[in-house]
Amino acid sequence: TTKSPLEEFGFPQSGPEVRQYVGHALSYDQEKKTPRWVIEHLTKEKTVGNADRKHCKFKPDPNIPAMFSATNEDYLKSGWSRGHMAPAGDTKYSTEAMVETFYLSNIVPQNYENNAGFWNRLEMYCRDLTERFDDVWVVSGPLTLPVQQEDGKKRVTYQVIGKDDVAVPTHLYKVILARKNQSAETLAKGAFIVPNLPISFDHQLPEYQVELEDLEKKSGLIFFPQVDRSKGVKNLCEVDTCRLIQLDEFKLYIAGRRMKNAHNLQKAEKIMRELDEAKIQPDKYLLDLFEQKKKDLSTDEPSVPREGRKG
Amino acid sequence: TTKSPLEEFGFPQSGPEVRQYVGHALSYDQEKKTPRWVIEHLTKEKTVGNADRKHCKFKPDPNIPAMFSATNEDYLKSGWSRGHMAPAGDTKYSTEAMVETFYLSNIVPQNYENNAGFWNRLEMYCRDLTERFDDVWVVSGPLTLPVQQEDGKKRVTYQVIGKDDVAVPTHLYKVILARKNQSAETLAKGAFIVPNLPISFDHQLPEYQVELEDLEKKSGLIFFPQVDRSKGVKNLCEVDTCRLIQLDEFKLYIAGRRMKNAHNLQKAEKIMRELDEAKIQPDKYLLDLFEQKKKDLSTDEPSVPREGRKG
Ligand SMILES: [Mg+2]
Ligand SMILES: [Mg+2]
Repeated sequence: TTKSPLEEFGFPQSGPEVRQYVGHALSYDQEKKTPRWVIEHLTKEKTVGNADRKHCKFKPDPNIPAMFSATNEDYLKSGWSRGHMAPAGDTKYSTEAMVETFYLSNIVPQNYENNAGFWNRLEMYCRDLTERFDDVWVVSGPLTLPVQQEDGKKRVTYQVIGKDDVAVPTHLYKVILARKNQSAETLAKGAFIVPNLPISFDHQLPEYQVELEDLEKKSGLIFFPQVDRSKGVKNLCEVDTCRLIQLDEFKLYIAGRRMKNAHNLQKAEKIMRELDEAKIQPDKYLLDLFEQKKKDLSTDEPSVPREGRKG
Repeated sequence: TTKSPLEEFGFPQSGPEVRQYVGHALSYDQEKKTPRWVIEHLTKEKTVGNADRKHCKFKPDPNIPAMFSATNEDYLKSGWSRGHMAPAGDTKYSTEAMVETFYLSNIVPQNYENNAGFWNRLEMYCRDLTERFDDVWVVSGPLTLPVQQEDGKKRVTYQVIGKDDVAVPTHLYKVILARKNQSAETLAKGAFIVPNLPISFDHQLPEYQVELEDLEKKSGLIFFPQVDRSKGVKNLCEVDTCRLIQLDEFKLYIAGRRMKNAHNLQKAEKIMRELDEAKIQPDKYLLDLFEQKKKDLSTDEPSVPREGRKG
């Protein structure tokens, strides 16, 4: 062969640079046992549909060699939640796509409150962008950032969990690129670095915005390399709101999700009572859900099985 | 085009997977600003020649974008030396190859004593292997390994230096693959993980040997993927010595290097006197060098310029 002697037994392999799935693509970090980045493309159509996370469970990605894969056991009792990078909620259009978001190749160890709170609100904002932009691309991933310490030195410190030493990121990032009617002039971008900590509802998204180039230097990645940056891509937080939903709206959203899952009348009524006690006005969406639920449950069959269908 | 919408502006880029040079190839870590791995192929012929590190200086690799490159300033006064992964001493056959080993893409922040001592001895051992094996492949690189801490958690901690936050590895690794007369039956491998700390002459190489698979899991890399491991590759430390040179031999070696550079008779004599005081018997190689030096210097021109040639 004409291979150089240097290459006779092959160069060291870090796995395929890109792995493609139905709804997302990612680069997997075989050392950290997490993704390096995960990219999605959102449209208004993709965020609606019947795919349901009830049918999904977290599991090792069958495409990744076991020695480089995280397992559910690594996360169990670790104190860290399994945080989606491509969110399940972005794949309502396809059960197959949703199932794949539960592969551990799309997951990083994430603070529980961050996952359920601020990060969740950021994911909602990304979906909401599809109301105002025809195409939305989102790249999400973990970071392990240095901290200046008392001895004057800068150090990176991060925990690893489980027998596979899965790296717990100190921060998470999202890069958002949005476009209207396929016109490059409407392109808007935003880059955000969010600490992997509880973040209360007092905090708004622009606090975490950074220059895309800063994130690139820190992550070692170039994002959306085929965007012509000389053409002046807009700042997403200037052309759109970058406003995350507030506590009351968030509680209404959670009430809606609980209402959909309520399988007896008491549960449904409890949800409405709790909102009332919190002095939150139910919106039309929730009121309609409640009415529908009452109709569905007002039969003489008190114990419909949770996963059952009426036919 | 037929590109999926996901890929419309390209996937995030972490740079070329492999970068090839005259004497080595490497994968560069744009996040850590160091190599991930560097591979060389050694033969007896390559370790002899006239290439001289006097003509080399450390500098940023011109192939790497400035935003992802380390600079000499990052290392200066950092407390860490610039440690070659592919050693300059392995490229005596080619000045071009040697110059490229001084690119900062081949360098990691290394403890000074480790660099001049244990790691240097390990590099000598790799060259020495070419006396007994026709082909020797070596992969070298940095690691940042976790430590179990007092609170029961495991954490990775490493310093970063300079304004580019160049990652200081906690450990360095080498994987050695050696073969005689192109016969796969003679293949022998050894994997070593060495802490990035001073290591005295009391320590021998086998103390740092690990299973190749352990190193692979920790580094996220598969080494020499085209070796058929089912065929039973031998353990280098069983079929060869894995013996590093001892303090007296090391002092002789250093004396030889100083002798070559000595440019007056007093210097040359001082080298011999110091060996005598340390009760180290000069070997034939050094005695010959000394005789030659005396001849070269016993002219009436006392101040030959350091870089000068006699014609
Ligand atoms: Mg989540
Ligand atoms: Mg060195």
